[in-house]
Amino acid sequence: MMAARETVMQTKAQRPHVVIAGAGFGGLQAAKALAKVDVDITLVDAYNHHCFQPLLYQVATAALSPADVAWPIRAILRAQKNVRVIMARVLAVDARARRVHTSQIDLAYDYLIFATGSTHSYFGHDDWAPFAPGLKHIADATEIRRRFLLAFERAEVVDDDDARRRLLTFVIVGGGATGVEMAGAIAEVARRTLQHDFRRIDPRTSRIVLIEAGPRLLPTFPAPLADYATRSLRDMGVEIALGRAVTGCDAEGVSLDGSRIEAATVIWAAGVVASPAAEWIGAEPDRAGRIKVNADLTVPGRPEIFAIGDTACVAGGDGRPVPGIAPAAKQMGAYVAKVIAARVQNRPAPPPFAYHHLGDLATIGRKSAVVKLGALQITGFLGWLFWSAVHIYFLIGLRNRFVVALNWLWSYMTFQRGARLIGIAPPR
Amino acid sequence: MMAARETVMQTKAQRPHVVIAGAGFGGLQAAKALAKVDVDITLVDAYNHHCFQPLLYQVATAALSPADVAWPIRAILRAQKNVRVIMARVLAVDARARRVHTSQIDLAYDYLIFATGSTHSYFGHDDWAPFAPGLKHIADATEIRRRFLLAFERAEVVDDDDARRRLLTFVIVGGGATGVEMAGAIAEVARRTLQHDFRRIDPRTSRIVLIEAGPRLLPTFPAPLADYATRSLRDMGVEIALGRAVTGCDAEGVSLDGSRIEAATVIWAAGVVASPAAEWIGAEPDRAGRIKVNADLTVPGRPEIFAIGDTACVAGGDGRPVPGIAPAAKQMGAYVAKVIAARVQNRPAPPPFAYHHLGDLATIGRKSAVVKLGALQITGFLGWLFWSAVHIYFLIGLRNRFVVALNWLWSYMTFQRGARLIGIAPPR
Repeated sequence: MMAARETVMQTKAQRPHVVIAGAGFGGLQAAKALAKVDVDITLVDAYNHHCFQPLLYQVATAALSPADVAWPIRAILRAQKNVRVIMARVLAVDARARRVHTSQIDLAYDYLIFATGSTHSYFGHDDWAPFAPGLKHIADATEIRRRFLLAFERAEVVDDDDARRRLLTFVIVGGGATGVEMAGAIAEVARRTLQHDFRRIDPRTSRIVLIEAGPRLLPTFPAPLADYATRSLRDMGVEIALGRAVTGCDAEGVSLDGSRIEAATVIWAAGVVASPAAEWIGAEPDRAGRIKVNADLTVPGRPEIFAIGDTACVAGGDGRPVPGIAPAAKQMGAYVAKVIAARVQNRPAPPPFAYHHLGDLATIGRKSAVVKLGALQITGFLGWLFWSAVHIYFLIGLRNRFVVALNWLWSYMTFQRGARLIGIAPPR
Repeated sequence: MMAARETVMQTKAQRPHVVIAGAGFGGLQAAKALAKVDVDITLVDAYNHHCFQPLLYQVATAALSPADVAWPIRAILRAQKNVRVIMARVLAVDARARRVHTSQIDLAYDYLIFATGSTHSYFGHDDWAPFAPGLKHIADATEIRRRFLLAFERAEVVDDDDARRRLLTFVIVGGGATGVEMAGAIAEVARRTLQHDFRRIDPRTSRIVLIEAGPRLLPTFPAPLADYATRSLRDMGVEIALGRAVTGCDAEGVSLDGSRIEAATVIWAAGVVASPAAEWIGAEPDRAGRIKVNADLTVPGRPEIFAIGDTACVAGGDGRPVPGIAPAAKQMGAYVAKVIAARVQNRPAPPPFAYHHLGDLATIGRKSAVVKLGALQITGFLGWLFWSAVHIYFLIGLRNRFVVALNWLWSYMTFQRGARLIGIAPPR
């Protein structure tokens, strides 16, 4: 079996072999940027699809279908002949032997790019995970959608007032962009989409609580935009608890210091931890588990290994750490492709990686968003239009843009949501 | 707890209470047809959505998303004030006390309609189920999609020739409309959609086998249409094995009398068995588990209980049994609503149920279908256009029609499939 495996990656040994682990924004960009370079690329991902994570919250709140925000990796790269795509999970890396061990196949590499992203972090309380799912993959989004919609169904049949209140309470932990967007979307579904659908409960009476440990929402945004988002959410009936840390999560709700919220549905949007790439190669991680890379995004002591996106810790041009957002990952992906191209073509290395911050965006329901674009700050409906245009533009694939635009238009006009399916297994 | 439950259904005791079990084509039609009758209706379904089963095979083959063929039951009936919807599973019926026990709530009824449908039958070989999933619910379709797409991913990385052949062999058991449609769709995905997506395998070399125990495909269609479907599928590279019964199913493939097909993906489209409604009330079932109902669709000896759709066995006007298809279920649903309305309003009972067969339709890939409409028989592209128009027309909800039409147009023009997601859990 090992012999057979060897043949797989030795067949094209004449050209440098670039293995990219992860087909998120960074990995995909790296693969595309190497299209015209004389290398063979293997792109490995545990899923068969690239997921447009910024819109996952729309899947979680039943506005979009999974297929609207995800696209088969193979289909994206179909025409690029120097890349093959392998659906497999990276298990280990032998940096000395330059080999990646995956769940399906072993891969020898000349260059290795870690673009393996991050997952949610419960700050040492992994036992909270079953009660407060986070939002990183399609499966997370459909699970949150299931819990969210099922809570209303259960509330409709339950006779106990306390149980009904608990079922109609939704807690979002974390006041960053994801938390703000989730809270706004949930408020809209409860107050508008479902308002005529039930006979015994009134979904408009739902309690929606957004908890943030820091002093304000959207900490990476300018204060006026955060204030605007706070006011908008409160106008939509979202309770905002600032400066409150969650001290416990269980099947019945969450505990804060000194108080308690009974809630059947809790969503975790508070903090991430990097993939275990640092562990695989024995590199030094920062507190968030990211590999502290050199200025050219190589791993210290391993010039043939790169880390990008949420897996990398690097200072931007201004000395501040590069944020864990899609544009940063894409810029890093494009940069390492340049570094590899320079080496393969024996040209001088490009200057150190410099991050260009394009802006910050967060939407608050169907008629409002906050946008920071350089010195420009936009709020309200104009912000929402801008936000929609940007997201539709960046969605991969003509069809997705089209269907997403159509769904949004439909949702906007009718308050209806197209993907209100409680999945899969029938209720017990 | 029981006391609390009682209050639930006694609150409106002044009006007759109709409980409808199942929100498929029959149950939904019955609920709608009772909109203007002075009754209270409770519609119970194990899922929160009505599923448009005739298009499920398009979800299984990644052409449509689940939300394109399913619609929240509550949303469909939102404006009908005399119906409430309960998401629960029927567990038992106490016909003497006129009570339905569900997983969520107990319901007293004055009239009870069984519209609980059918599930696939393995003819006494339930141990085959894990190896040959059938296609009744959304979850079945996404599971088949997962297996189908994963087979190509696995084939791309495997080194053993036999294993690769096994992974690229797809067997469909059952040559009725569902089997024919699945075989055609799978052939199209393998031969066209995926043709440029892989580097080591050629999906066009896939082997697709349609097995039918009877002497020909589409037994309920006129012979010339069945012949046309057979020729069309063979032209698309589908092997058709007629008069061959499956004698075994396991993880490696299927056994026929005296031969064997190694296949990683087997799909079951061969026969159904009714829901256990007959068992719940101790009624006499026919061989397929259906309740043998009277000419007014009541259960013998229980004039307040009706059975419709796949759960009922009744002779049509011509003496032949009413087929288990959507139009039949809808006609029965509308009929029992009339019977109940007549009783509530003290009017004479309507004449016995008479079934009007509208026609038969089956599509064969993206450019062909067979249609029987009264004396009219249509094949080929014209048939496909007709088939598309009919299905889009009957899809519930403006949005679904729109999105489905758009997806079909897109698939037709590009051979691409919009929902090529291998779900949920990452591969091991």
